[in-house]
Amino acid sequence: MRRVTRPVKAGNIAIGGRAPVSVQSMTKTDTRDVAATIAQIKELQSAGCEIIRCAVLDEEAARKIKLIKAGIKIPLVADIHFSSKLAILAIEAGADKIRINPGNIGSDLKVKGIISAAKSARIPIRIGVNAGSLEKYSGRQRHESAAVTAKKMVKRAVSFIRFFERNKFEDIVLSLKASDTLTTIEAYTRMAKECDYPFHVGVTEAGTVSGGTIKSAVGIGTLLHSGLGDTIRVSLAGEPLEEIRVGYGILKTLKLRDKGVDLIVCPTCGRCGVSLFPIAEEVERLVSGISRPLKVAVMGCVVNGPGEASEADFGIACGKGMGMLFKNGKVIKRVKEENLVEELMKEINKLKS
Amino acid sequence: MRRVTRPVKAGNIAIGGRAPVSVQSMTKTDTRDVAATIAQIKELQSAGCEIIRCAVLDEEAARKIKLIKAGIKIPLVADIHFSSKLAILAIEAGADKIRINPGNIGSDLKVKGIISAAKSARIPIRIGVNAGSLEKYSGRQRHESAAVTAKKMVKRAVSFIRFFERNKFEDIVLSLKASDTLTTIEAYTRMAKECDYPFHVGVTEAGTVSGGTIKSAVGIGTLLHSGLGDTIRVSLAGEPLEEIRVGYGILKTLKLRDKGVDLIVCPTCGRCGVSLFPIAEEVERLVSGISRPLKVAVMGCVVNGPGEASEADFGIACGKGMGMLFKNGKVIKRVKEENLVEELMKEINKLKS
Repeated sequence: MRRVTRPVKAGNIAIGGRAPVSVQSMTKTDTRDVAATIAQIKELQSAGCEIIRCAVLDEEAARKIKLIKAGIKIPLVADIHFSSKLAILAIEAGADKIRINPGNIGSDLKVKGIISAAKSARIPIRIGVNAGSLEKYSGRQRHESAAVTAKKMVKRAVSFIRFFERNKFEDIVLSLKASDTLTTIEAYTRMAKECDYPFHVGVTEAGTVSGGTIKSAVGIGTLLHSGLGDTIRVSLAGEPLEEIRVGYGILKTLKLRDKGVDLIVCPTCGRCGVSLFPIAEEVERLVSGISRPLKVAVMGCVVNGPGEASEADFGIACGKGMGMLFKNGKVIKRVKEENLVEELMKEINKLKS
Repeated sequence: MRRVTRPVKAGNIAIGGRAPVSVQSMTKTDTRDVAATIAQIKELQSAGCEIIRCAVLDEEAARKIKLIKAGIKIPLVADIHFSSKLAILAIEAGADKIRINPGNIGSDLKVKGIISAAKSARIPIRIGVNAGSLEKYSGRQRHESAAVTAKKMVKRAVSFIRFFERNKFEDIVLSLKASDTLTTIEAYTRMAKECDYPFHVGVTEAGTVSGGTIKSAVGIGTLLHSGLGDTIRVSLAGEPLEEIRVGYGILKTLKLRDKGVDLIVCPTCGRCGVSLFPIAEEVERLVSGISRPLKVAVMGCVVNGPGEASEADFGIACGKGMGMLFKNGKVIKRVKEENLVEELMKEINKLKS
């Protein structure tokens, strides 16, 4: 059961409420370089990125938000640290949402200044409490348990929320990220009992594409499966497009979004008479542009293949020399091994017309 | 809280009880090819594979188990379909465990024959109920809900268990896999209420390495986080070693095993002055052989890096030209950018001596 949250809006994208869980990413360009930043965001939005965040490190970057926004279609979130002035400039430049850690802005008065600017601009604020930022304030110890760190994160987030509420601001998204997955899961789980603000969920600094995918899928996946999470960001040290691919992969796995092809591939065993992995990877590549939800199976065995993958919309079962093409659980054609992928794609492409 | 299960033993590896969650894989060679199969298993056991399964398709394959076992160190599971004769031959050839779907063996009498052979050899049997095998028996419909399919899987598994118990056999491991992750999660979750036999957990036919990692990490990760799972297999259409890497990745993420390095890498943002991903990937490669548990951080920013990654045992924070090396949360050295990785590895390697 998905947690009931009160919706906020970043530009035209709703976060929380009944809105689908959205997928976001962060640019890895210098925000002051407008052309490079727009180019990266355009690539991301084509891949399905729904909200983009840019780091705002100085006044020039804050002012450039206006130009960047003119070149893109999705809402832009300004990521601010240490400075209420930068936050206010970013809001004035048209940011659709800002992300701050109220604990590093300097003073309550300065945070009030940001709140007041966001209120005038009618944009939401994400309050981001990262485990890494706890040290100075909450005396976090090295190697303390996930539960202890998570409690400190929640306590800090609650105190920020109360401050925002006292200042009549409730247009809030919350995040409680840690690079430790268990801490992340624990923090959001505890926080869910404290408020109904929507959650931005992610495991921070998760790692490279290969390692970070595992941590992110376990952490974000576990939380979403338990009903928590309104927007997600997969943090990977790699191509930003990978963050979008993995983000949708997690959501598709849990049937929270149904974008594109779900590929079922048998892992092969002694039963398999063909070299299946290159075939599967070719199919994966060929269907990667399809945004319509489809189940496609690539099986290594004509005996069990069609039965095992009968829930697939389309599939091939590969045998030595000959294979089978199946559709909606029924074998529709026997095909020469070398033509299997081509015949499969022909069937799939018929859908488009 | 981990589910309390009754332990069984496959060779020298305990499954269930207080045993650590073990990582297994399946060979992708022709089992009759003894040399190729042993070579693949040796590679897998060096990478940490703790139990290996081989498909047994004919009598020759069943008999070859004896020779394969002589060349390897880890327990071998014979994977049998359709034939009690093959199961009994595999047991006679020294299999440490067998995996069957009692529903496709042909008759109760034949299943009894397998039970009796396993009992004499004192080896466990994994009862594997796959969603894909339900069609013929339980009238599974295409596109039926995860909950409905899961219920049918559990009902079928319970009836098999009762049959085994009536035949005085309780040396059982259970699996309930589906290529659909939600169905898999639901099936194990329901099954946990029905018995205390240990679970072999996996998402079947999960996909290629990139796509299958996501499904497996979400499915296996969610189950393990809820306390379910005694041994795992990640099914990937790719190099078998990838199954081991991802398997340990999931277990490390949830702190269920502590093999090797946990890499924290910041995903970079406009703040990052260096090209961090190649550095992170180089570090990942250099530490991949270390089996001692360590947290290593690769951060893109000298301002926030050491603080954000203060829980790391070792780390580098990269800046333009100069970076910092930190250890146990404290900066120990300023280092030229080009020497950062070398200096980091020097510090890590000191641990070995």
